[in-house]
Amino acid sequence: MKIVLIGAGNLATNLGKALFRAGHEILQVYSRTEVSAKTLATVLKCSYTDTLYKVVDGADIYIVALKDSVLSSVADLLHERLSGKLFVHTAGSLPMDVLPFIRRGVFYPMQTFSKNKEVDFSVIPCFVEAVTEADSQVLKKLALTISDTVYELDSENRKYLHLSAVFCCNFANHCFSLGANLLKQHGNLPFSVMLPLIDETAAKLYSMSPQEAQTGPAMRWDENVMNKQIQLLAGAPDLQRLYELFSKSIHEEALKD
Amino acid sequence: MKIVLIGAGNLATNLGKALFRAGHEILQVYSRTEVSAKTLATVLKCSYTDTLYKVVDGADIYIVALKDSVLSSVADLLHERLSGKLFVHTAGSLPMDVLPFIRRGVFYPMQTFSKNKEVDFSVIPCFVEAVTEADSQVLKKLALTISDTVYELDSENRKYLHLSAVFCCNFANHCFSLGANLLKQHGNLPFSVMLPLIDETAAKLYSMSPQEAQTGPAMRWDENVMNKQIQLLAGAPDLQRLYELFSKSIHEEALKD
Repeated sequence: MKIVLIGAGNLATNLGKALFRAGHEILQVYSRTEVSAKTLATVLKCSYTDTLYKVVDGADIYIVALKDSVLSSVADLLHERLSGKLFVHTAGSLPMDVLPFIRRGVFYPMQTFSKNKEVDFSVIPCFVEAVTEADSQVLKKLALTISDTVYELDSENRKYLHLSAVFCCNFANHCFSLGANLLKQHGNLPFSVMLPLIDETAAKLYSMSPQEAQTGPAMRWDENVMNKQIQLLAGAPDLQRLYELFSKSIHEEALKD
Repeated sequence: MKIVLIGAGNLATNLGKALFRAGHEILQVYSRTEVSAKTLATVLKCSYTDTLYKVVDGADIYIVALKDSVLSSVADLLHERLSGKLFVHTAGSLPMDVLPFIRRGVFYPMQTFSKNKEVDFSVIPCFVEAVTEADSQVLKKLALTISDTVYELDSENRKYLHLSAVFCCNFANHCFSLGANLLKQHGNLPFSVMLPLIDETAAKLYSMSPQEAQTGPAMRWDENVMNKQIQLLAGAPDLQRLYELFSKSIHEEALKD
């Protein structure tokens, strides 16, 4: 397919590379920042622009991978010239209808992207949605050229999928951050000592549910250990509250069984 | 070395197998529950007992791997007959001095153990502590027969290490649980769709710190998305509070840079 990428951030970069490798023709990269547009365009062997009215009109699909906050206004400007084209956004948290196009859709690859770390797209689940069944099929077909796992999912359910991803990725990663801070402040151990534990915590999920995998003081409701650990956090009242909320929630989840 | 295992739970089972494979002679397994003692003893080709006064006196080291709540009372009873022996416990959260023995110590393999999932002990960091330098060396040598990563760490710093592990393992896993519940309730997607995201969240930590790896609405301080997600949790006030605390803490961490 002939594709135009609107955006040159982490997601656009990773997605663009995957599409390019899968044999699609990237016609153009747009970014507000010329240097970002050029950097990605060089990799994808295509033209680039930092000017919205220069976005070419010959693509089969326009993929808008921009920050949620600017997506709508950029889409509105593009709509003036390209209203008949198929436009999709890549945001898990936004409904399809933030796009003004008749042929609108969503192409959400659920992963955490960093600019300097390449990801294997084939294992990333992609969630697609479109107004018409025909465009749904186009998106599904496109997604299957880069990923082994493709689902159709409507905007309402995607909101919860994205919220689930915030817990599984962003909040879990912040748990790692908080753990890293504790290590830095006490005993001067490198954070690398935590990696086998974190790996196993993730690996367990291939053979049991997170509910079954739960361990620790809150799971055993070991109030002695919990109270001592809350005291260790005495200088950080927000962390104490977080510890208490977590422990309560783990306990309630355990009682469900 | 000649070893007696006091306990036959997840940790004792995994540790016992690793020690056995490394060529140590397990003399005996004690468990309050005869069937547990027998099950593990069969694997370790040794005798077993469910009676504390029948614990044999010929071992070089006694490893007490019991729930924190019963550790002290069991140790006191064993101390009556075996006061001159080297006793260690395996609890990250407890100080060495919960043991009444003159030759006391700690042998803490930091990992999350499940009974039915074997772990590769060689990558598990072990933290050892003893009263005398000689016993420290004994524990270090023993640990190095089963693990590539061994640290001496005193009880004070180990408290924080264990708290860090609670964040990195128990709390992170509960984030996965909460994410799994959201998926179950909306859209009926299998939890397996989250595994690539969780894997990548863990894998990133090999090339960047968790602070550098942080992504998501709170990191970008995208109040629009955050407010909508808090509304999605309207039926669960504790989860809303957890979401708010997390977002605030992620934001504060981001501002540190």
